[in-house]
Amino acid sequence: MRPFELTLGEAADAVANGELSPVELTGSVLERIEAVEERLGAYVAVTGEAARRSAALAEREIAAGRYRGPLHGIPFGLKDLIDVAGLPTTASSRVREGHVAQADSAVTRSLFDAGAVLLGKTHTHEFAYGLTTPQTHNAWDQGRVAGGSSGGSAVAVAAGAATFALGTDTGGSIRVPAALNGVVGLKPTYGLIPRDGVTSLSWSLDHVGPLTRTVRDAALVLSALAGHDAENPAGLGAARPDRPLPRERDLKGLRIGVPANYYFDRIGPEVETAVRRAIAQMSDLGADLVEVEIPMVRYIQAIQWGLMVPEATAYHERALRSVPERYGPDVRVLLEAGELLSAGDYLRAQRARTLMRREWGRLFEQVDVIAAPTVPMTAAEAGQDTVEWPDGTSESVSDAYVRLCAPANITGVPALTLPVGRDHAGLPIGMQLMGPPTGEALVLRAGHAYESVRSDPGEVAVVTA
Amino acid sequence: MRPFELTLGEAADAVANGELSPVELTGSVLERIEAVEERLGAYVAVTGEAARRSAALAEREIAAGRYRGPLHGIPFGLKDLIDVAGLPTTASSRVREGHVAQADSAVTRSLFDAGAVLLGKTHTHEFAYGLTTPQTHNAWDQGRVAGGSSGGSAVAVAAGAATFALGTDTGGSIRVPAALNGVVGLKPTYGLIPRDGVTSLSWSLDHVGPLTRTVRDAALVLSALAGHDAENPAGLGAARPDRPLPRERDLKGLRIGVPANYYFDRIGPEVETAVRRAIAQMSDLGADLVEVEIPMVRYIQAIQWGLMVPEATAYHERALRSVPERYGPDVRVLLEAGELLSAGDYLRAQRARTLMRREWGRLFEQVDVIAAPTVPMTAAEAGQDTVEWPDGTSESVSDAYVRLCAPANITGVPALTLPVGRDHAGLPIGMQLMGPPTGEALVLRAGHAYESVRSDPGEVAVVTA
Repeated sequence: MRPFELTLGEAADAVANGELSPVELTGSVLERIEAVEERLGAYVAVTGEAARRSAALAEREIAAGRYRGPLHGIPFGLKDLIDVAGLPTTASSRVREGHVAQADSAVTRSLFDAGAVLLGKTHTHEFAYGLTTPQTHNAWDQGRVAGGSSGGSAVAVAAGAATFALGTDTGGSIRVPAALNGVVGLKPTYGLIPRDGVTSLSWSLDHVGPLTRTVRDAALVLSALAGHDAENPAGLGAARPDRPLPRERDLKGLRIGVPANYYFDRIGPEVETAVRRAIAQMSDLGADLVEVEIPMVRYIQAIQWGLMVPEATAYHERALRSVPERYGPDVRVLLEAGELLSAGDYLRAQRARTLMRREWGRLFEQVDVIAAPTVPMTAAEAGQDTVEWPDGTSESVSDAYVRLCAPANITGVPALTLPVGRDHAGLPIGMQLMGPPTGEALVLRAGHAYESVRSDPGEVAVVTA
Repeated sequence: MRPFELTLGEAADAVANGELSPVELTGSVLERIEAVEERLGAYVAVTGEAARRSAALAEREIAAGRYRGPLHGIPFGLKDLIDVAGLPTTASSRVREGHVAQADSAVTRSLFDAGAVLLGKTHTHEFAYGLTTPQTHNAWDQGRVAGGSSGGSAVAVAAGAATFALGTDTGGSIRVPAALNGVVGLKPTYGLIPRDGVTSLSWSLDHVGPLTRTVRDAALVLSALAGHDAENPAGLGAARPDRPLPRERDLKGLRIGVPANYYFDRIGPEVETAVRRAIAQMSDLGADLVEVEIPMVRYIQAIQWGLMVPEATAYHERALRSVPERYGPDVRVLLEAGELLSAGDYLRAQRARTLMRREWGRLFEQVDVIAAPTVPMTAAEAGQDTVEWPDGTSESVSDAYVRLCAPANITGVPALTLPVGRDHAGLPIGMQLMGPPTGEALVLRAGHAYESVRSDPGEVAVVTA
């Protein structure tokens, strides 16, 4: 196995044991980037020289006995909405021409403190306001969308062009590309991870989180990100999953909710089969399956858009007035639409969110985790606008990708996606595990147990030249 | 001294010592209501029979050794926005015709648990959306406005027609009528007192609090209201002023901020003189006076109205569509104006509020308390629309009354008003003491020390027939 193919956990173990040097690992990943980047377009910028220097420093620190923990010497990619002092944060947009970040974001600082090695900045759908990331190509089929908005991060991790990466998630932007590229993505509880120094899309829905190749890896990154309580006094530091994941694969006593409505409506049959099989496997591992009714489903789309659109427009107010022509047409039309919404529309969405949060609180009195598809279909063709469902309805690709992710943004509950198979074309299928607020440990435990009985956890996508 | 003239503290001491029976006290206050109510119009409804029964029950409990504390057997009025099970909550509006509350509000429950005796429901400016309370007349001059929106509560307390009362404050609605009627009013820290069962005007600015005749009385009621932590898990129970107010009048070491801008601009000369004299007296008591600059004053009005108007409209959305003709014309026009505001307007106000809260946080690193006028002028004539200032500008009466109160609503800091004298026409003048969030103990301490050197604390208005 070449170093770039190692999962974060495997690489960390090898580095800790002295079997793998951070320089060797980083070199291998940088070579992999060179080999596949032209086909994938995952990166806005690769900072190879700086990465090699950081890896060499990590190697010296570890040799001197100053091992910092599992992220020490591990190379990672950062969605280009996240500030690194001295680098531009382009948001994959011409609006940011000439931008240079003055300081590291809180999450950048956490990863640097943990000794991780920055490889570069990965592509986002412009300002995170879209679900495809058109600059980037799916790791498994370059004619397919990467998903978005954290498309670059997901594709880099899937292809071995980063051992892990960070993304952001406002309506599925970590989970959608993770599912479409067959990697693990975690949208933590709202407020758990500090967002200082991260470009906002919609502040009441935005989350930062990891993309990795295994659930164990996601837990390792989450620990590093959620650990900085002193910097995040308003955060939910108490939820920090300090304890390592249990080794046993036993899910005895865990109540897994299986939605009777909403999550299995209008989804592809191969997605449904793969997710239901994964749920059955968790039942075999000892979990109790409980049918649950998802509340207030008629309001989900209106709440998600009713909050996101005006908040995004408020954030972009000045640039939209001064340099509107620098936005891509899809993002500009959404931002301009936000100017038409009334305060009443926004407040209705806020009040409905409050009710929905309460209803979901009741749901998590009945179950520990809810299992569902992450997205209703695998990766769309590049350029595809709509999807037709067997019931005769059609839907925009964006709406389809947001549909099953939005509830966790609206309610703020943690949501993990992990691969549960492939469709007939070899495209990955994702399962979503949601838990109560600060219930990260529950969803990680369930996902880890499922993953440990799979044949191929952590596999790297084959990218043909 | 007749029982209705006793302050809450005096009455409580007399009841505790067995010198005064709750039945006698309640009877005296009910007689006072009968004598003055026709001239004042403070009450929507007086529940005299129920009050006499509650007082008799309190008397039996105390005789049996089950004394509950200082509110036991003390008669009070409740602003008619606050639910009492089985009674209508009219909000002084025809919109609420036929309404009956199903349950006690959280604050009603707290007062009933403390053994207090409900006298009835007091008038509010319709749905709390105004500063005059036109149904009610000023306790000191019935040709003058009561102030609002808690006009009925302030007038009842001022006239001895209630030993204390509750009001609500969204842009000064406790403090304005308290100042105009020469009583004490406390708007506590945002979130300290639960608002369940209290009709909302603008949920991000609304507060419930006491109106009393002395600062000590305000502290006694606050203790009862803030004590119910189990019912208010999201509340700020830690701020509960459990300790009684210090007996000494010493303000040594207390840093009192005196605003160099905003609060003394465009105010009546008699108001300025009275407030500055009160500040000088606090300095004589040992406080250090520190000149402070009030931040972001250009934005105060825009933030207050930018938050309040759309939130109020959102709350009234249905009734405004189904029974618009039942609103008074002044309230209806404000509610309809709210439909014209954009989501961007609202979000700008929200974001500016966040900045302003931060700036005020810095202010309270320099001082413990800020002292200022509560309102720029004494009670306006009934029907007066505008006020002319010496600088040649004019202002609506409503804007003038909100102007100096709004900062504490926007920032959520506690604000106490207490009487500091009268103008040439005998109309009361109020001083406002603001403290840092959960700094109720600081403002109460400062107010109590000032009050204890006054000649006439707690006096009841003379209402001539």
